Amino acid sequence: MTHANAFGDGERAAVYRAIAERRDVRRGFLDVPLPEDLLTRLLAAAHSAPSVGFMQPTRFIVVRDYDVRKAVQDIFSEANHQARESYAGEQAERYSSLKLEGILEAPQNLCVLCDSGSKRGHGLGRRTMPETAAYSSVCAIQNLWLAARSEGVGVGWVSILDPEKLCKLLHVPEHLTFVAYLCLGYVDGFALEPDLERFGWERRTTLESVISYDRFSEAGKR
Amino acid sequence: MTHANAFGDGERAAVYRAIAERRDVRRGFLDVPLPEDLLTRLLAAAHSAPSVGFMQPTRFIVVRDYDVRKAVQDIFSEANHQARESYAGEQAERYSSLKLEGILEAPQNLCVLCDSGSKRGHGLGRRTMPETAAYSSVCAIQNLWLAARSEGVGVGWVSILDPEKLCKLLHVPEHLTFVAYLCLGYVDGFALEPDLERFGWERRTTLESVISYDRFSEAGKR
Repeated sequence: MTHANAFGDGERAAVYRAIAERRDVRRGFLDVPLPEDLLTRLLAAAHSAPSVGFMQPTRFIVVRDYDVRKAVQDIFSEANHQARESYAGEQAERYSSLKLEGILEAPQNLCVLCDSGSKRGHGLGRRTMPETAAYSSVCAIQNLWLAARSEGVGVGWVSILDPEKLCKLLHVPEHLTFVAYLCLGYVDGFALEPDLERFGWERRTTLESVISYDRFSEAGKR
Repeated sequence: MTHANAFGDGERAAVYRAIAERRDVRRGFLDVPLPEDLLTRLLAAAHSAPSVGFMQPTRFIVVRDYDVRKAVQDIFSEANHQARESYAGEQAERYSSLKLEGILEAPQNLCVLCDSGSKRGHGLGRRTMPETAAYSSVCAIQNLWLAARSEGVGVGWVSILDPEKLCKLLHVPEHLTFVAYLCLGYVDGFALEPDLERFGWERRTTLESVISYDRFSEAGKR
């Protein structure tokens, strides 16, 4: 049974397909810039995400300049080196073998910022939960990520970097909060499983283990 | 030109349709419980969202019990009353006229939590940006929101409540962070525009006003 407001079967399947086949992509980016109209569609998808109080706090910097990307990669490398030091033995080796970014391979990157203190929306919905401003920006990212998958565009989220250094490099004013740095581009393919699963970093949890009913319970032990 | 890994035209259009037609729904919920298999599909869509270090930190409480929802609505009402006090004049009147939740009308609610300190993922990607754990839970919410739209299911995010009171009510242990409280259900329709836009609370910003290139610039003034 489907409801009157539901999409047709094929359309619904397409939405679930985007959700299932979306990957956090760090390898296989093609050296082909995204067409301007495609990039605009992706940004429009992000911009139409829900936002608390309809404040639309998200700001985007499209980074294509090679020198800027190289400087971002340096910031990544430093943070990644420090991260690697925190692991030992087999885990350190495994960490070293992971490819965790495609900053230079992807012809375009996207820095996502949030104007958390904006007066837009007149504070509606943020009084007890100010973090919902940044959450709005994350909704925008996930919109873009799914739209990108449908366009054959890979997206990789790089969080291994020092936000302060990145913001200085990109001339981000103090009132904006850094949310995410993404690598975007056509790719040679999409892996069937998340990289961190197929390379043995972490195993998948079951759906049952994360659901409770009416009140929290540790029903689903892993 | 579409890329080899892109979806077909109809499938791509369906993904963009879900993004464009998704709404933050607070009214018009039907008194019809969602079928169990549909709810499972929505939660599976959420569970397959990206997560930092593949930590999968998101926990869900499906709230169907009327008394629990009534108690949640009381928590909302208190926070909403306090919020209303912060506005004056015409804005206060406009705030009072807004319908901001559908906790009792929607036969099922969903509390979304994040196990931010979980060892899963071995800290990968969280060293310099611990907030990415909660961001992973927001990606899960947006997946569910779009899947729900394709199923004809409305979703409304309620952030006007005291997280501490809510967590106490729902027996949420201290190590979990409250991320969101959602109302879910079949609806009589989806509005063409966001409620806060059509009822004059806030106007939409243009896409151009939120994009910079290579470095941040105030290019797009509103």
